Amino acid sequence: MQSEERWFTEECSACGSAFSMKITEKLHEEQSAVQHIEIYQTEHFGKLMVIDGCIMLTDRDNFIYHEMIAHPALVTHRRPERVVIIGGGDCGTLREVLKHKHPKEVWQIDIDERITRLAERYFPQLCDKNDDPRARFKFGDGIAWIKQAPQAACDVIIVDSTDPVGPAEGLFSIDFYRDCRRALQADGIIVQQSESPLYHAKLIKEMHTAMRAGGFSMTRTLTFPQCSYPSGWWSVTMAGSPAALSNTPRYQEAAALDTRYYNEDVHQAALSMPNFLKTILGE
Amino acid sequence: MQSEERWFTEECSACGSAFSMKITEKLHEEQSAVQHIEIYQTEHFGKLMVIDGCIMLTDRDNFIYHEMIAHPALVTHRRPERVVIIGGGDCGTLREVLKHKHPKEVWQIDIDERITRLAERYFPQLCDKNDDPRARFKFGDGIAWIKQAPQAACDVIIVDSTDPVGPAEGLFSIDFYRDCRRALQADGIIVQQSESPLYHAKLIKEMHTAMRAGGFSMTRTLTFPQCSYPSGWWSVTMAGSPAALSNTPRYQEAAALDTRYYNEDVHQAALSMPNFLKTILGE
Repeated sequence: MQSEERWFTEECSACGSAFSMKITEKLHEEQSAVQHIEIYQTEHFGKLMVIDGCIMLTDRDNFIYHEMIAHPALVTHRRPERVVIIGGGDCGTLREVLKHKHPKEVWQIDIDERITRLAERYFPQLCDKNDDPRARFKFGDGIAWIKQAPQAACDVIIVDSTDPVGPAEGLFSIDFYRDCRRALQADGIIVQQSESPLYHAKLIKEMHTAMRAGGFSMTRTLTFPQCSYPSGWWSVTMAGSPAALSNTPRYQEAAALDTRYYNEDVHQAALSMPNFLKTILGE
Repeated sequence: MQSEERWFTEECSACGSAFSMKITEKLHEEQSAVQHIEIYQTEHFGKLMVIDGCIMLTDRDNFIYHEMIAHPALVTHRRPERVVIIGGGDCGTLREVLKHKHPKEVWQIDIDERITRLAERYFPQLCDKNDDPRARFKFGDGIAWIKQAPQAACDVIIVDSTDPVGPAEGLFSIDFYRDCRRALQADGIIVQQSESPLYHAKLIKEMHTAMRAGGFSMTRTLTFPQCSYPSGWWSVTMAGSPAALSNTPRYQEAAALDTRYYNEDVHQAALSMPNFLKTILGE
């Protein structure tokens, strides 16, 4: 590297790898009540948000993650009227959910209001549906919120969190899944970011086990590329009743969504399981 | 990074990103007649081979690339008896091709014999079929070899090359595709590594155009994760006649292959096209 070049590097030390982006400027840095937040201007990825040293999103490739955590679950649920997003403070998942016609109320419950305020400033395109009358914002502990939610209060829960360390650790526990199961209708679906199929296959297996122990009798992992996350390959895992997850997705509605990655073929493709992953997940 | 740690970093300067792996030892370094070759022991990826500063393969994730450049084309061709690999000096693609029963002769034509000699020493698992009586090795210019090959001499050509700069540049030209078209049977298929769908979509589009100009009237790109290549997302592009590429793949044979990534579902999934890529490729 030439000495005048500046890079942001995220090391995944447990994986023995690192990903770097060339940056031109640090736009913001703060220690919020919850976490350390940095925002950079990059040379090729637009703006970059970093939380506690981990890349959260870039302008360039966040569309894949946000579309894949929102659309497969919403298209699979028969009638997703009440949707809850746990985490997702950057509003990118909310934006995708609000592209659908069924939702009447979409709650976004992030523990750190600063993420949303900074997204409004630095990632305005992710926040362009924040004024939608169906959007509801709550800043606080999503785990406690779900625990106190009325029984069968929602149709889809989307867990759009950071990695399972620190504030997000409890979002990967049997107790949390049990509370989600109680907060969902019988045909409800939960979908959660589930890390890298290459680096974290054991964690995905543990999530399946914990989700089933929490009362969801069927689980399915979907994979997709995500350049700026470790290994460049990421996943979300859906859980629900066999009837809920076996429902034929409403692909005709999917085709009408304004998406850059997601479509019917990509939805089905994401559900395909490479042999090594089938072996690890015991499928 | 702690000062005692050692990393190998590949910068993709046109992409503004870099990927690094923690290394413990440099096992080998040489300037061959063609290129600069390095081999490292990594902490989490097994051994790593680097050519002219670019990551060629690691023990950990090469299976995805090698399976995806070999199996979809071989399973799609009706009867792939004569297969030619241009490049592929590490023998990983040859190994996958030789898992199939149809091939009677498989030629591997790499410009640099040193790659094969070093693969035999440092990546012996990729070379475990090099003694197969169907394997033929030729070290020299693949472009010239194809130009001089008898007409209709082969069924499948696999172009397993480095990036389209330096020695590999000519492998992405209309002239080369025209020579391949002539060297193939009428129902022949060519498949070639085609870089990152995120970083190099324009190059993929240019490949489609060049392959069609070279006489292949149908082209199809398949995508798959590849952690150690830029963006973590990679592709191969197949070209042939519409009849050749529309042939129903022999998936029952695919199921019998000993593979860690590839299977019927993954083959179909790799053909799915995200919306942004459909737009760029004009599909």
